[in-house]
Amino acid sequence: MKKLGKQTFHMKDNVFIRDVYTIVGSKEGEGPLKNNFDMIIEDSLWGEDSWEKSELKFQKTAAEKLLNKNHMQSKIDLLISGDLLNQITSSSFSARDLQIPYIGVYGACSTMALTMGLGAMLIDGGFANNILCVTSSHFCSAERQYRLPLEMGGQRHMSAQWTVTGSGAVLLSNIGTGPTIKNVTFGKIEDLGIKDANNMGAAMAPAAYSSLKQHIIDTGIDYDLIVTGDLGTVGKGIVNKMFNEDKMSIEKKYDDCGTIIYDLEKQDVHAGGSGCGCSAVVFGAFLYKKLLKKEIKNLLFTSTGALHSPTATLQGESIPGIAHCIGIEG
Amino acid sequence: MKKLGKQTFHMKDNVFIRDVYTIVGSKEGEGPLKNNFDMIIEDSLWGEDSWEKSELKFQKTAAEKLLNKNHMQSKIDLLISGDLLNQITSSSFSARDLQIPYIGVYGACSTMALTMGLGAMLIDGGFANNILCVTSSHFCSAERQYRLPLEMGGQRHMSAQWTVTGSGAVLLSNIGTGPTIKNVTFGKIEDLGIKDANNMGAAMAPAAYSSLKQHIIDTGIDYDLIVTGDLGTVGKGIVNKMFNEDKMSIEKKYDDCGTIIYDLEKQDVHAGGSGCGCSAVVFGAFLYKKLLKKEIKNLLFTSTGALHSPTATLQGESIPGIAHCIGIEG
Repeated sequence: MKKLGKQTFHMKDNVFIRDVYTIVGSKEGEGPLKNNFDMIIEDSLWGEDSWEKSELKFQKTAAEKLLNKNHMQSKIDLLISGDLLNQITSSSFSARDLQIPYIGVYGACSTMALTMGLGAMLIDGGFANNILCVTSSHFCSAERQYRLPLEMGGQRHMSAQWTVTGSGAVLLSNIGTGPTIKNVTFGKIEDLGIKDANNMGAAMAPAAYSSLKQHIIDTGIDYDLIVTGDLGTVGKGIVNKMFNEDKMSIEKKYDDCGTIIYDLEKQDVHAGGSGCGCSAVVFGAFLYKKLLKKEIKNLLFTSTGALHSPTATLQGESIPGIAHCIGIEG
Repeated sequence: MKKLGKQTFHMKDNVFIRDVYTIVGSKEGEGPLKNNFDMIIEDSLWGEDSWEKSELKFQKTAAEKLLNKNHMQSKIDLLISGDLLNQITSSSFSARDLQIPYIGVYGACSTMALTMGLGAMLIDGGFANNILCVTSSHFCSAERQYRLPLEMGGQRHMSAQWTVTGSGAVLLSNIGTGPTIKNVTFGKIEDLGIKDANNMGAAMAPAAYSSLKQHIIDTGIDYDLIVTGDLGTVGKGIVNKMFNEDKMSIEKKYDDCGTIIYDLEKQDVHAGGSGCGCSAVVFGAFLYKKLLKKEIKNLLFTSTGALHSPTATLQGESIPGIAHCIGIEG
């Protein structure tokens, strides 16, 4: 069986990350990665009449631009996508227009790694030549679905994170050049009882620690760079503390997409970025390019999800966390 | 590549449907399949303090009973599950308690076939020995999330379907005996513009027709029985009409889980059953047993999903439909 250790799946053949495409909103376009994105959209509605329709346009455009750029419009075997909205509407409506056989997934902010992991395994399993993995999030659609009406103008908690407006699309292929996905660890749910929707970093950190540790033990690989999805400053600190207590410190080579995407001093985002789009666009615009330029030779990319349900929270439940790891070679 | 025709994935090795487990509510337990279910729960709350928590208990219990019965508690490589609730909470919270690496999917009522298709491909791809596929739905939690408060006691449309309260769990394995999954077709989204949440059958029928036709063309297999997920009387009629117009009539060997699960004359369910649980429990309690008893030698099992979003509907959008086909040999 193509499995390493307890929980990690190993790709026998090459699964190339053939190309990526990223689109972000204005706030992300003013951050430290502003010169790295493929498109920056100033208008949060992007000409649509709702934020949900705008998010759909982000996702659909990222997918279409990536396919057009690579002349792959009719060559995709499967589309795997998901997002934060109820019934993953950005993904479903985007899939309607793309007309590609479609697998919808839900993993909250862990979605980018979830789609890439599944896609890699279906290609390595011999079922597909080309798979398109996409995700998106939008500050305005997420905020009103998960927290409070934006019009209220409520003050934000210091532990709160800022949902990234953006979409990332990743093209996986069994031919090509470039970085390859080698090992995939799908996480178990970890839940230490966090009930505060303004502290997602703390809800996700134990899951990140658990999946990262299992992946490192299963593969024995010494990664140049380990990056989590969107734990922000609070969650990143907890992960470092948990590894330090384990005497397995990863601090020197560890970073988090939620702290990379914004200028935390100047952009008033409190604990950092979050949302499915966060790890998607930081991967596409920044980490993928580091691999291409051979600045790093391997990367452990881990998207982290807080499976927060407003209904479950009202019924007294806590917020379960999950993290999926993708081991990539440059 | 392990692909037949345009859109169908072929399993090279045997992927056995090793065992199934079904739990349903009282209404389903009074229907034509009452002697076939593993458990019938009379109390819609099952001792919990909300319908959502009750649904979670259905799903978790179905999974646990199936694992215990087969002594497989510690032998499952992956759990693939999804449901109708926002953030698929029944699945996520169930996965938290099961502590199995978890892939969450969203396909509305197409979920059972979606999880089985993915599971079969990951086993055939050499990544797993045993995968657990689970889904659930609950009349009360679905009705209040997608339509109106139950307390309102509104009159139901004649085209409306009754969401099945129930959960089905399916154990896939690369060793064993019994029926095997041979071919999987993931559907494209079809959307002919239906905007009425009380007519899901019509919203899903074009997707069912499209995926079924593609699967039949791709495989060339003459199935003994073709069953769709939960189109009910309205959608089933449309599918028959579409195939008849194509001069490919399937009428004599075609049925729909939504019309099988209830006594449509006596149980006041109007157009029939629906919900992720519908095709899941009809498959587990009825179709799977037909294969085991060799009453049929092969089955084309197709779960159908209406990717209905109340938010998108309020914004003027229609309801996209999807259908995933699983070709099974007895």
